[in-house]
Amino acid sequence: MLSLQDQMKHAVAEAAVEQIRDGMILGLGSGSTAALMIKSLGKRIKNKELRDIVGVTTSFQGEVLAAELGIPLKSLNAIGHIDLAIDGADEVDPNFQLIKGGGACHVQEKLVAARANRFVVVVDSTKLVNRLNLAFLLPIEVLPGAWHQVKIELEAMGAKAELRMAQRKAGPIVTDQGNLIIDASFKDGIIDPINLELQINNIPGVLENGLFVNLVDQVLVGEINNDEVSVRDLVKA
Amino acid sequence: MLSLQDQMKHAVAEAAVEQIRDGMILGLGSGSTAALMIKSLGKRIKNKELRDIVGVTTSFQGEVLAAELGIPLKSLNAIGHIDLAIDGADEVDPNFQLIKGGGACHVQEKLVAARANRFVVVVDSTKLVNRLNLAFLLPIEVLPGAWHQVKIELEAMGAKAELRMAQRKAGPIVTDQGNLIIDASFKDGIIDPINLELQINNIPGVLENGLFVNLVDQVLVGEINNDEVSVRDLVKA
Repeated sequence: MLSLQDQMKHAVAEAAVEQIRDGMILGLGSGSTAALMIKSLGKRIKNKELRDIVGVTTSFQGEVLAAELGIPLKSLNAIGHIDLAIDGADEVDPNFQLIKGGGACHVQEKLVAARANRFVVVVDSTKLVNRLNLAFLLPIEVLPGAWHQVKIELEAMGAKAELRMAQRKAGPIVTDQGNLIIDASFKDGIIDPINLELQINNIPGVLENGLFVNLVDQVLVGEINNDEVSVRDLVKA
Repeated sequence: MLSLQDQMKHAVAEAAVEQIRDGMILGLGSGSTAALMIKSLGKRIKNKELRDIVGVTTSFQGEVLAAELGIPLKSLNAIGHIDLAIDGADEVDPNFQLIKGGGACHVQEKLVAARANRFVVVVDSTKLVNRLNLAFLLPIEVLPGAWHQVKIELEAMGAKAELRMAQRKAGPIVTDQGNLIIDASFKDGIIDPINLELQINNIPGVLENGLFVNLVDQVLVGEINNDEVSVRDLVKA
């Protein structure tokens, strides 16, 4: 028996897969809900319900899973566009701005989202917030040789910032690209995501931060009402 | 007998080294003029003309050279500040804005310049331009998985953009950090370096571009007048 939260994740993953059509080039996200979406996609390809699908993954996690399921993959450098990208998020605000990067994959995820004609976010209702960064830290991918310096810059901007430490590995986590993650929190949350994204990305040593600004076309939210799981198509503020 | 251009490089390198004092933490640049500066520094340390110097390098090139000369080195993560950074440039405009990255080291170079209390640029007079990017391409360091996508974005911004290919290696050059370089040129050159730097750094997949904006404290220019080599302290427009 799946927990209600797992049922929510299944429900939104299925709702997103319903949007996939034959011949699409798909961006395949990372994280637990995206993994359910990839599994559902793999099943439909195997059953010949979907044909001529090409996937572009956003992490080693997705790459391994898609390969196991026999989903044909291409690299970002090998494709001209992405028809539809489906991914989770750590926080979603009323304007459809996101924080991503809890899984340290937000660089690849942003590359895919930015390339996609349509970007659909799948979350459970616990991810909806009124203002970003009050509860979830903002992940920032940095060059290993620059983490100390970027931390100082972020602190000068008023943030608390800490290097993300690993479990099952000594020292910090290392991303799929070989870099480090600094997690930052701004005291009053993130009031102006557009400018903060620009400002952080302009700090030398920063590859990319976890703010996804003006990229999202649709947010599908898994909800529980009276012990019933349902999927809501979120309306933008 | 050194060529006049080499004499110019020697002269500006020496003029910059004159600013070094005992106990300083120094940013050591990359390229041919910076290499002359590092050699001169090494000589002065060996002769005990300078003591308690710590260097922070901007490339493997500088690291190897400084190690050979016995200059003590620390990493950017191990130091609290840099007193003085000395580096070359590919283009210098009248407002002291630079293009760097001909040697594909501009990420480390910008980290060091941004950290330095004082940043001195050493160039020969051929590097002075009225507007950036009319003659020298703007280097942009990108993740290998993103080069195609970043190229498309740059082209959408009106630039010509090409992947920098290697010599003595098949395919593209790979930077000291393991990434690729796209060289871009804007038809009318770079009119607004401040905004262009922000805009390019915000493209997913871009680590850093070669625009150095509002970082330079002094430009020392090697010149030839009537077959005489001299050093000029450039006056900002």
